[in-house]
Amino acid sequence: MAHQKPLILVTNDDGITAHGIRTLVEVMQELGTVIVVAPNSPQSGMGHAITIANPLRLYPADIFGEVIAYECSGTPADCVKLAKHHILKDRSPDLVVSGINHGYNTSISVLYSGTMSAAIEAAIEGIPAIGFSLGDFSRQPDFSHVREHVFNIAQNVLQNGLTKGVALNVNFPARGPEPLRGVRVCRQANAKWEESFHERRDPHGRRYFWLDGEFVNYDAHAEDTDEYAVANNYVSVVPCQYDLTAYSTVEQIQQWGL
Amino acid sequence: MAHQKPLILVTNDDGITAHGIRTLVEVMQELGTVIVVAPNSPQSGMGHAITIANPLRLYPADIFGEVIAYECSGTPADCVKLAKHHILKDRSPDLVVSGINHGYNTSISVLYSGTMSAAIEAAIEGIPAIGFSLGDFSRQPDFSHVREHVFNIAQNVLQNGLTKGVALNVNFPARGPEPLRGVRVCRQANAKWEESFHERRDPHGRRYFWLDGEFVNYDAHAEDTDEYAVANNYVSVVPCQYDLTAYSTVEQIQQWGL
Repeated sequence: MAHQKPLILVTNDDGITAHGIRTLVEVMQELGTVIVVAPNSPQSGMGHAITIANPLRLYPADIFGEVIAYECSGTPADCVKLAKHHILKDRSPDLVVSGINHGYNTSISVLYSGTMSAAIEAAIEGIPAIGFSLGDFSRQPDFSHVREHVFNIAQNVLQNGLTKGVALNVNFPARGPEPLRGVRVCRQANAKWEESFHERRDPHGRRYFWLDGEFVNYDAHAEDTDEYAVANNYVSVVPCQYDLTAYSTVEQIQQWGL
Repeated sequence: MAHQKPLILVTNDDGITAHGIRTLVEVMQELGTVIVVAPNSPQSGMGHAITIANPLRLYPADIFGEVIAYECSGTPADCVKLAKHHILKDRSPDLVVSGINHGYNTSISVLYSGTMSAAIEAAIEGIPAIGFSLGDFSRQPDFSHVREHVFNIAQNVLQNGLTKGVALNVNFPARGPEPLRGVRVCRQANAKWEESFHERRDPHGRRYFWLDGEFVNYDAHAEDTDEYAVANNYVSVVPCQYDLTAYSTVEQIQQWGL
């Protein structure tokens, strides 16, 4: 029997026309047969939202040459669900990759990240999955220094698989004067945004607010975190799970005698 | 110094006019000073989404008598952020409660749940937090059998606190012929929806899709899960964390030699 090329689903949260997904499609074509199902508009900060109160739209998108692609009106998690349960009903993908996100999804950002929610949605479906993000918010980021790592990490996941219920959160530093120093498999840093709101008035005098904040790393002295890795020009790889149970506290709360 | 009553922030994801939040406000008034900041529209399935591309609106809502209340154009997570960093800048809440959700947030639903994202957002801010949900989707659910448990669990959290980074996910069975059998502190079941999409055509002939699915519990024989608890007429309490690191797989992936 002929060896069948792996089937790779590509999605993202910046929308199907973003530069990051184009790079991801190009690299994945070296590893398998690629299909794209991605949002038709930016979905940054959508977390693990899904569309349940409105109907979902799905249209063919002829923007990646020979690669079959669809744009979807929903969230990244919706895209994975539609791909798995409608478009690819007869053959499940061997790998789901999401990104490359324009901006980091390290530490607490993993919770708000549409990029990672797509990867975690795939993990829920039992499909090995990776979210890729680049710490560069410019309109036209340079992805050239991450291509070999994207290829290598995806190839390893295809070869080794991932423990059931786990997806990888991969973050790359922006291209700098020095080459990347390598890959560190690490944990999610205990870091967050110390937030504030800008209060403004619209032309009708009505108040509105913009979320803003300053990033604070409470794990600044730890060397085993994703924040440490990217701050030191390493690629960070964090295995993420969707079982949120805080097992270490179950017994303690049982003792309350509720 | 006079003993100050606890400050309790109440939010939800069904919107500020839902029946569940009214019950929660009433019970919390027995425990402290209540303030409400809740979405002005249903936000079910919004997961941990936050509003970053659009301005947020916030209006006073005079619907809970003497209780100060605001309605917000954003998600449950936005409500907690606006409450903490704008409305309650000078005094952080002692407790954040979210719900009571109309429908279960057991097992995998915790990821999609706006109710729980509000509680987890509070945990990120270091505030003890609880999400409450009821397994009853009717328009006018009966909350009378859960009031004493809501009070008791919230009182325990106020007295004992919660480990940093942990929020409780509490689920109540719908009122049945028998009284609730008690409370079980348990883990998130390995269960999910086996999904499918209904394909339809709008009056213009354009396709659209509705998400549907059948619930499957892969942990059906385990007795330590939230699904077991509610199926057997117990209240389930699952401590949830936002550190998603799958620690048990870090070393394994390190051995890939990326």
